[in-house]
Amino acid sequence: MTTTAPTVEEAATGHGYISDKNRYLARLKRIEGQTRGIHRMIDEDNYCIDILTQISAITSALNNVALGLLDDHLKHCVTNAIETDTADAEQKLREASAAIARLVKS
Amino acid sequence: MTTTAPTVEEAATGHGYISDKNRYLARLKRIEGQTRGIHRMIDEDNYCIDILTQISAITSALNNVALGLLDDHLKHCVTNAIETDTADAEQKLREASAAIARLVKS
Amino acid sequence: MTTTAPTVEEAATGHGYISDKNRYLARLKRIEGQTRGIHRMIDEDNYCIDILTQISAITSALNNVALGLLDDHLKHCVTNAIETDTADAEQKLREASAAIARLVKS
Amino acid sequence: MTTTAPTVEEAATGHGYISDKNRYLARLKRIEGQTRGIHRMIDEDNYCIDILTQISAITSALNNVALGLLDDHLKHCVTNAIETDTADAEQKLREASAAIARLVKS
Repeated sequence: MTTTAPTVEEAATGHGYISDKNRYLARLKRIEGQTRGIHRMIDEDNYCIDILTQISAITSALNNVALGLLDDHLKHCVTNAIETDTADAEQKLREASAAIARLVKS
Repeated sequence: MTTTAPTVEEAATGHGYISDKNRYLARLKRIEGQTRGIHRMIDEDNYCIDILTQISAITSALNNVALGLLDDHLKHCVTNAIETDTADAEQKLREASAAIARLVKS
Repeated sequence: MTTTAPTVEEAATGHGYISDKNRYLARLKRIEGQTRGIHRMIDEDNYCIDILTQISAITSALNNVALGLLDDHLKHCVTNAIETDTADAEQKLREASAAIARLVKS
Repeated sequence: MTTTAPTVEEAATGHGYISDKNRYLARLKRIEGQTRGIHRMIDEDNYCIDILTQISAITSALNNVALGLLDDHLKHCVTNAIETDTADAEQKLREASAAIARLVKS
């Protein structure tokens, strides 16, 4: 049940996020800029609450990136492993659950 | 790639948690008792911080139940759907990702 | 800076939530019922995703109760301690920060 | 109940974090570097789970920075406002509770 035919690159690496790579890169660039912004706010003695508001915005943005990567991972890497009935399907399911637990508790 | 042969009950319902049902029921019973405990703490004018400590313990316990159910769901329901190549495998992957997002953001 | 004149009960216990006690008790009763509901869903072999949806609803409800209690605690218990310049103001600030950390990480 | 005599800078800005400013700046620099690291991992087609592990490390680090800022804010900005009995003490308490809620739910 491969939802969409993997691109050559995707098939080579098997990573689900490859098809969305540029979007992920752009989002990470933005988050990096926001982090630099917080550094500047502290450096310029901004009000604590304004800094906290920015931090919550970044953790939210990071969580959304993580949820996207996880969705891609389940749909591609985990699905491919289950379909090809290889032993690593169990490994990939264990890894996915551990990653979900870290996300919920970080 | 069904990791373990499904029990008759499991096969009938297809739910991964069935094999661990009694453990889940016992954990829910305990959480219910803890919730009643908080009700009593408030009723008896306990100190706010002590009540907050109990609430964090319950949300942690609930998150652990959810992570267990999710792990079972991925290993059984989602895996079965992918293996049998039915259309609902995509539905189950969508549902799983939405459930993970709710968990991360609740 | 006591925002509102403490009631006799509040003054006696000093807990901020006393003025809202009945509302908190009603909310805890509802959460207890929802927890029992999850026990029943598992007992009756409901679909994993439906159970996960209910768990997220409860953790959200519990977090909202905790945020309310914390708000009351800061406005009354912590504020009273700071105003009366007693040594336990530092203790109360430490406790509040520890409770916030547990909430963020549970 | 001012826990420690505010430095000249702190008194001027009233922000609690000023006394720890360099440590906060160093932590933000590190988080910025970690974010760049994730950008590189995606750019170099790293495995999804390894990227997710890094994201959880960053959200955890950001939450710890936020909890530190909040603790400083309560001990200085909020405490000063309550002690000087100015009207903004209520404003600062409202802001603090809103910031805590964002942290818990981001």
